[in-house]
Amino acid sequence: MSDKVTVLVAGSWGTALASVLAANHSEVYLWTRNSDQAAEINKSHTNDQYLPGIILPSNIVATTDMESAVAGSKAVVIVAPSSGMRQVAHSLKQYWKEDMLCVHATKGFETETMKRMSTVISEELGIAEGNVVVLSGPSHAEEVVRHCPTTVVVASPDDKAAAAAQELFINNDFRVYTNRDLIGVELAGALKNIIALGAGLSDGLGFGDNAKAALLTRGLAEISRVGVEMGANPLTFSGLAGIGDLVVTATSQHSRNWRAGSMLGKGIPLSEVLESMGMVVEGIRTTQAAYAISAKLGVQMPITDQIYHVLFKDRSPRSAVESLMGRDRKTEMEAISQETWEQWHS
Amino acid sequence: MSDKVTVLVAGSWGTALASVLAANHSEVYLWTRNSDQAAEINKSHTNDQYLPGIILPSNIVATTDMESAVAGSKAVVIVAPSSGMRQVAHSLKQYWKEDMLCVHATKGFETETMKRMSTVISEELGIAEGNVVVLSGPSHAEEVVRHCPTTVVVASPDDKAAAAAQELFINNDFRVYTNRDLIGVELAGALKNIIALGAGLSDGLGFGDNAKAALLTRGLAEISRVGVEMGANPLTFSGLAGIGDLVVTATSQHSRNWRAGSMLGKGIPLSEVLESMGMVVEGIRTTQAAYAISAKLGVQMPITDQIYHVLFKDRSPRSAVESLMGRDRKTEMEAISQETWEQWHS
Repeated sequence: MSDKVTVLVAGSWGTALASVLAANHSEVYLWTRNSDQAAEINKSHTNDQYLPGIILPSNIVATTDMESAVAGSKAVVIVAPSSGMRQVAHSLKQYWKEDMLCVHATKGFETETMKRMSTVISEELGIAEGNVVVLSGPSHAEEVVRHCPTTVVVASPDDKAAAAAQELFINNDFRVYTNRDLIGVELAGALKNIIALGAGLSDGLGFGDNAKAALLTRGLAEISRVGVEMGANPLTFSGLAGIGDLVVTATSQHSRNWRAGSMLGKGIPLSEVLESMGMVVEGIRTTQAAYAISAKLGVQMPITDQIYHVLFKDRSPRSAVESLMGRDRKTEMEAISQETWEQWHS
Repeated sequence: MSDKVTVLVAGSWGTALASVLAANHSEVYLWTRNSDQAAEINKSHTNDQYLPGIILPSNIVATTDMESAVAGSKAVVIVAPSSGMRQVAHSLKQYWKEDMLCVHATKGFETETMKRMSTVISEELGIAEGNVVVLSGPSHAEEVVRHCPTTVVVASPDDKAAAAAQELFINNDFRVYTNRDLIGVELAGALKNIIALGAGLSDGLGFGDNAKAALLTRGLAEISRVGVEMGANPLTFSGLAGIGDLVVTATSQHSRNWRAGSMLGKGIPLSEVLESMGMVVEGIRTTQAAYAISAKLGVQMPITDQIYHVLFKDRSPRSAVESLMGRDRKTEMEAISQETWEQWHS
């Protein structure tokens, strides 16, 4: 088989992953709809809109022609925005061959259906969801292209597919672990944005590091709780796609979710926050979805509940945090099932 | 019973906990060996060496007389340095009454014996280890005295003792969860300092947020692994005393452990680092102890192992991180026993 690999599309994360792959493989095709961007990547080896100041490896070939991007590739890595995932996967279908490896690295749900990305891809490609591999973890694109040491997880219930994805990406700067829990890794990546919003809210209120650390910890407990109800392994939330990505997102001022939360905490109304961001804040949609899911499944999500009320029901950020502090006396292990508890105490 | 509560000794964390208790109880006695410090607290309601700029509640009474500090109290909270814990508990013994509640909030081991603090206290007071409650979690003293929202855990296998400690401390600014896992909470508080050292090392090398987040995540996995071998519940490490405290310690430049690691990462030799710190760096002793424990128990601790070699075997920080990145291809769940894995996948 050839050593050609394809990445769809050329945003900051797609371009960063293409540059990791270019260190390992002879040919990396990067597909984009934007012909100016393709010309810039091929001519000057830059992608200034998404990764300003970075020179990309010269064996990255950009093209707007999906057929030539995909033909003869051993693996296709999809990094479309969640809202555009179905369309990109649909376009890919006609060039897709069964012996190709399918990896995606998109965090979020399809808004209308609340489906995970691997479900959307498997529906469009007509393959089993288990044949899709998700790549996730604490990974600012800007650091990856600068060869800062980065560690991610690739997950699929198909051990061979996960191992193939690990082999595809791993090198001295980019360490790749495997995990079988596709559902958990996808849920952790999406749901952690709610907690990043909350961390921003707390920082915007000036509440300090103790409050933020508590919020991350208790937030992780509640997204694990709802994740388990949706079929995830709880241990995944203690891994790179869970706590690892949460730490990077919630303590970085580069995170859109943290920034939106911080502005809300300072008393700026949601409409103004959204206007000033000028782009989608993934955690806001995810909060709305998780609020509905927690009601449907009967899972307590006190932090998500308070953030939902701040976003959509005009609750003041301060009274939201006061409500969280004022809850009944609780045991820390309330999130854990009695069986799990007894397993460790028998 | 009276509403008198006693705190031993008047460092920054002891004084901060006394100020929490002073909001809930009529009389709080704070014992210190230093008569100038006692006079300052009683006269000007300040403790400027440890909490500069803070006015303490006026119902905190400082004294150098342990008998009058303890007599008639319903609870004694011990916050001695780990190296002085045995001596303080030994002095307390003669004033100790069986109906008193014993809480401690000290992170670390007794260096010579590697015993946990509750073991040391129980030996000196002649009570069961299970009758000691440990208080831990993400809690900068400077934020607690400023009434920033803070969340901690109190742990004891004795549910009544844990509930009594929760009742003692809980108020609107200070949220208290209970946990039965005394061993896990004590181990998490001590072992997390190794990972804070490592986070400083990574930051000192300029490796970025991706590397630090991976180090926190994988570090948490290995301290959980050794903690479980020592009798802890793995879930405790995902709670406030584990990941919560780790986030606060490893992302704060106020942490002595982070600072020492950062200086080492910049190439400053250990002897100079220790000299410039002018005080004990708890994580250095703990690394040495954990290295010995992991060998004895046969538990893999790759991050601790590398930090040990940097501290004591002249390994360069850069080659230590490169060794971590270059390890074999692994699955993320290697830390988890096969039974636990199967429980979630059957």
